[in-house]
Amino acid sequence: MKIVSYSIRDDEMPALKEWQAQHPDVEVQIEHELLTPESAAKAQGADGVVVYQQLPYDRATLQALHDAGINKMSLRNVGTDNIDMAAAKELGFQITNVSVYSPNAIAEHAAWLMGRLLRREPEYTAKINRHDLRWAPEIGREMRMQTVGVIGTGHIGRVLIDILKGFGAKIVCYDVFKNPELEKEGVYVDNLADLYQQADIVTVHVPSLKENIHMINDDSIAQMKDGVIIINVARGDLVDTDALIRGLDSGKVRAAGLDVYEKEVGVFNEDWEGKAFPDQRLENLLNRKNVIITPHTAFYTETAVKNMVQISHNCNVQLIKGEKADNLVKLD
Amino acid sequence: MKIVSYSIRDDEMPALKEWQAQHPDVEVQIEHELLTPESAAKAQGADGVVVYQQLPYDRATLQALHDAGINKMSLRNVGTDNIDMAAAKELGFQITNVSVYSPNAIAEHAAWLMGRLLRREPEYTAKINRHDLRWAPEIGREMRMQTVGVIGTGHIGRVLIDILKGFGAKIVCYDVFKNPELEKEGVYVDNLADLYQQADIVTVHVPSLKENIHMINDDSIAQMKDGVIIINVARGDLVDTDALIRGLDSGKVRAAGLDVYEKEVGVFNEDWEGKAFPDQRLENLLNRKNVIITPHTAFYTETAVKNMVQISHNCNVQLIKGEKADNLVKLD
Repeated sequence: MKIVSYSIRDDEMPALKEWQAQHPDVEVQIEHELLTPESAAKAQGADGVVVYQQLPYDRATLQALHDAGINKMSLRNVGTDNIDMAAAKELGFQITNVSVYSPNAIAEHAAWLMGRLLRREPEYTAKINRHDLRWAPEIGREMRMQTVGVIGTGHIGRVLIDILKGFGAKIVCYDVFKNPELEKEGVYVDNLADLYQQADIVTVHVPSLKENIHMINDDSIAQMKDGVIIINVARGDLVDTDALIRGLDSGKVRAAGLDVYEKEVGVFNEDWEGKAFPDQRLENLLNRKNVIITPHTAFYTETAVKNMVQISHNCNVQLIKGEKADNLVKLD
Repeated sequence: MKIVSYSIRDDEMPALKEWQAQHPDVEVQIEHELLTPESAAKAQGADGVVVYQQLPYDRATLQALHDAGINKMSLRNVGTDNIDMAAAKELGFQITNVSVYSPNAIAEHAAWLMGRLLRREPEYTAKINRHDLRWAPEIGREMRMQTVGVIGTGHIGRVLIDILKGFGAKIVCYDVFKNPELEKEGVYVDNLADLYQQADIVTVHVPSLKENIHMINDDSIAQMKDGVIIINVARGDLVDTDALIRGLDSGKVRAAGLDVYEKEVGVFNEDWEGKAFPDQRLENLLNRKNVIITPHTAFYTETAVKNMVQISHNCNVQLIKGEKADNLVKLD
């Protein structure tokens, strides 16, 4: 059995080597380049491919894979937006993704952003960098004194709630689908207005469905407490960035921690050093001492990467063996 | 009843005003200057003083207070090292301190330092500041995957253990005095060697008694795991700084987070911008991307400052009324 694994990064190698040692019957051909109509030919003779890229899996690419005899493709990530589903269906593809690789990676990142903002860390870091070691006046606040509003209580929201409870924070949460255990604890509020009224920190952990887009907007911010902290480690389009900037300008929003941004594609995960920065609105946010931007790194832990590499290869083996694969993607 | 409160900072004013509103029978005279032999005269006619400073409460200062008719002094902090105890005893002083103002402030700070180091935040911050928004290769690690060795399970250690449990981290701890609840949970190890062998992160929460000084030294570091993270938010002299630097140089120590430093007096809480920095060893640590120094700010939260201000004034009232005061300092 042979799998071609495309665009393998150096940081993925330890997990892939571990998987190879556990699967001596599987030949893994490692390719550092992306999957394109040209590089697809490298899969000739293999049984399946493992992939991860922002570049589209378009008709030409899928056709080239098909011509190389491959119709089993396993994504190392969750997102399937960049797949031409119609072409995949027509060409008889079977595709898997990794739907859950580490909710803890994301939830912990949200907690770290909260901590850095509560302790006004960017202000201290700037002071310390210029050798100003005075502690006043950037007084911090404690997590245990905060009421945190968690919107969305799926995998990630639930892990975050456990973390926040460890700090002794008060939790209020909201979800259309209520988790029975959390319901017993009485932490749900009936509507977002109640959550906004109570929360010192608002953090969103919902999918970017149509009804959730720009859920953090001028109207919802107006309903929040003065001095609220807003955290988004979920999807960029959940937050209306212009409304957030207005909230920061007026002081209504004390601080914000963002691992995602609605126009991040083509800007995040690129090196702009010495080049004209392409997004003035993002630059505005980056220049604020009460805003922390991380370029979609919440997921990026050794544990998550290991899961992404190993689960995807397991799924590809399942597809090749004709077994019922975990994480089969519905092609429509 | 009248209290003179010395060296009140702006960030202490909200808590002091709140206390004044709750105690309309007490006149509080606010002085922004430190207590010195000269400024002691301002206490003439008052019943007690509330103080907080690194400057010594030496014989001359205490004598001047005594001459002004004052022998009831309440510290807003815990440390009493800067009091001439013999003089205080001779002059008939009664002194209180604030022994516990917020273990959470310190414990949370330790957790935040761990998070920043696990996620290699200083490296990311430097990249982001120069507009390099690539996420690789600074892969992070998750708290839930760590074994944390907590040395000292008093107020602060215990709060930290609760926080770390919320993350799902594994805890091993050591203390000469075992906490019965923690003992039931089976988290204690029998000796420090066991703790050093197991811990991915070592954090110290013990007093700076003679037997604890330089407990983190070449020998203890050698017993730790390769790639250990060391956290000290307790007392600077618990860590042999030269040994720590050797550990960082060799790579044995992956990272360190320090809110205290053995030679911090006269360096921390000063502004060295544009001046010759007085400590080359500290400069060495400040320049490392895998070391985070915070200048003794762990305690500095709104909650802690409120407690320091309000508990000290309560204690001073108790002294003045001749009641048994909380936090009475033994003068020897």
